[in-house]
Order: sequence, then structure tokens, then C-alpha cells
Amino acid sequence: MLTEPDKIEQLSFEIITRELKRDITGPAAPLVKRIIHTTADFEYAEITEILGGAIERGMGAIRSGCRIYCDTKMIQAGVNKERLGRYGSEIYTCVSDDDVIREAAARGVTRSIVGIEKAARDRNTKIFAIGNAPTALMTLKELIDKGETSPELVIGVPVGFVGAAESKEAIRDAGAPCIITRGRKGGSTVAVAIVNALIYMIK
Amino acid sequence: MLTEPDKIEQLSFEIITRELKRDITGPAAPLVKRIIHTTADFEYAEITEILGGAIERGMGAIRSGCRIYCDTKMIQAGVNKERLGRYGSEIYTCVSDDDVIREAAARGVTRSIVGIEKAARDRNTKIFAIGNAPTALMTLKELIDKGETSPELVIGVPVGFVGAAESKEAIRDAGAPCIITRGRKGGSTVAVAIVNALIYMIK
Repeated sequence: MLTEPDKIEQLSFEIITRELKRDITGPAAPLVKRIIHTTADFEYAEITEILGGAIERGMGAIRSGCRIYCDTKMIQAGVNKERLGRYGSEIYTCVSDDDVIREAAARGVTRSIVGIEKAARDRNTKIFAIGNAPTALMTLKELIDKGETSPELVIGVPVGFVGAAESKEAIRDAGAPCIITRGRKGGSTVAVAIVNALIYMIK
Repeated sequence: MLTEPDKIEQLSFEIITRELKRDITGPAAPLVKRIIHTTADFEYAEITEILGGAIERGMGAIRSGCRIYCDTKMIQAGVNKERLGRYGSEIYTCVSDDDVIREAAARGVTRSIVGIEKAARDRNTKIFAIGNAPTALMTLKELIDKGETSPELVIGVPVGFVGAAESKEAIRDAGAPCIITRGRKGGSTVAVAIVNALIYMIK
């Protein structure tokens, strides 16, 4: 049994390239293949959309040192923080911050909404990675429309049966560079795959 | 847009139940539906296998207070630790422990292997949740075969193209109660869905 992580990953990507029904070229290729590597689900080749120069803008922001907001602790746990730190970038969430919990309770809205509002006020947060909460993505779309934040990249990949697909269609129309997975599929592991793919593409 | 988490989850499970091509009955139903809720992928209804009274054994272990070993920090981040704590149970990983890193380097094996060996020596670790490393699952199978550990439940859901499917077939044959996803699919979010489903099924 192959036990060296680098060789396993290389062989995995070879298998994915061979089994993909269509050619994916340019910087989209390593990104989409990493999503498939993470999910073993080739449907992501059909539903992943990359708009507005999202890959270049995202890589640029990471390379320049920025904060990446994510909506779950799972995303934060999965991203390669050591590599991110080499560029002076970091990933954070604030859905469990005391002030966010208090404000959400007081206003009767979700912590996801209050969390994204707080993140949008932070000028150094250039990338948003949303893998769970459609409400977070809808709120982000409103904040972009109002000109209250203008992210370099929105990773919009909430998974689910209620509101997820609609929230991804909404963020497409916000005009910010974005990477989305149309329809129901997505999730924390997909968000992690996208962020890590961007990091690994930086020379 | 629906924003209350409980209502969103309830509606999601109703949609899943309606769209499932076959009836799933008994305690398997909430477990398989939670995996689909997490992935939006109905294929999990076909590939999820629950063997040896795995659900009852897993719930019993959690209810009695036990340690759950997992092979990624993403799994640890995603599990409902507050609810787990109510039963005196906890979830941990040790792949980043200094002694594990040192030993893996010295022996030239993966940290996943050394991590699972360390976990197997801990008598209070009754559940193993493996979402990433086929080598961890293969090593666990060997340790069970040798009688060095006898878990109440093995959650064997590594995702991937190299060794993942084989490792899940191997753990099936170890004879321990197990929940697996046959073939390539699985991952950290699937492991989290299974652990959380067990927790939520406890009255």
C-alpha cells in the first residue's frame, strides 16, 4: 500500500485527470481537480463556476497578505495555515465571538449574519469563504450591493436543500470575483479545497 | 428567506425523505439522512453500510462516556462537543502531537499511522472516526486483528482515489461494529455527520 502523502496525491490527480470527461485548462484545472480530490465527486467539474478573474484576484490577495473570513471552524481547521502565514495571510471566523453571539440574540438573527457583517467592516478581510450558511452569503451580497465591502474573492459554496442554491445564484449577480458551486452541493471541505488550491498555485 | 436553523434543518430532512428513492427504516434513517444533508449527495444512501449493531454500540459508548479518536482537526472542529460533553465524552486527535510527529519521522511512516497506534493504546478510546487516511484505517484493522484494541465502533469513511476503497473493505472484515461508505466517497464532513447523528439520536 502506498503510504507517502505526496505520491498518493500525485497519483490521485493523475486518476482524476484520466477520468474527467472533459478537458479543463488553465488555472481552473488544479482548482477543480482539488475539489474532486476532496469529494471523489466528478459532478463538481460541471457545477463549479469561476467568475471575474477570481483565481488571480484570490491568489493576489493571499500573496499580498490579507485576512480570509470563513463561516465555519471546520474550514478554518482544514486550510493550510502554515503556507498562508508565509504570505502574511490568515484565516479566521467570528461566529463564536462573544459580541457576535450577544448581538445575534438581541436582534433575533443568525450568528452567521452578524459574523459576516463584522467581517465586512474589517478592511483587511479581502476573501470570504462561505461553506455552510446561505444567510451569510445573502447578507454578503447585500453588503456588496450597498458598497460596504468589495472583496477580492468570494468563495460561495454553501451546501444544502434550503436556500443554498439561491444564495449562490445571488452572489453571482453581486459582481465580485467569485467561485461557486451551482445547485445544492458544496460544504466546508469544498471551501477548504478551493482555498488550499489557491495557496498551492502561488509560486 | 428562512433563517431559523431548526426550521431549515427540519425542512431539509423533509425534502431528503421525499427525494430518497427507497425507504430507509430504523436508526439507519436519521444517520443516512444526515450524511445526505451534509453532502447533498443521495449516492450515500447506496454506499453507506452499518454493520455489527454499530449505531447502538456507538450510542452506548457515547452515553457511557468515552473518547472518540479522529484523524483530522476538521472532524474535531465539526463535531458537537457541547452535546458530547453532556455524556462525559470527548473527541480528540493526536496527529499533531510532538511525540507523534517525532516518532513518525524516526520510523519513516505517516503521522496517521503513529496517531492511530497511540489512540489504540488508550483504553478509553472506544470509537474511531477516520475520514481522511486510508493508512490509519488499515493500521486499525491490523491492531484489531492482533487483539490490541476492540472498539465499540469504527467510522471508516476515508475519501479518495488511492487506497480509500480498499481500506474500507479491509475494516469491514475486521469484525468490529462499523459504519463505512463503500468506494471512493467519504471525508471529514461525512465523519462529522455520522458522529453528530449518533449524538442526536441519544434520548
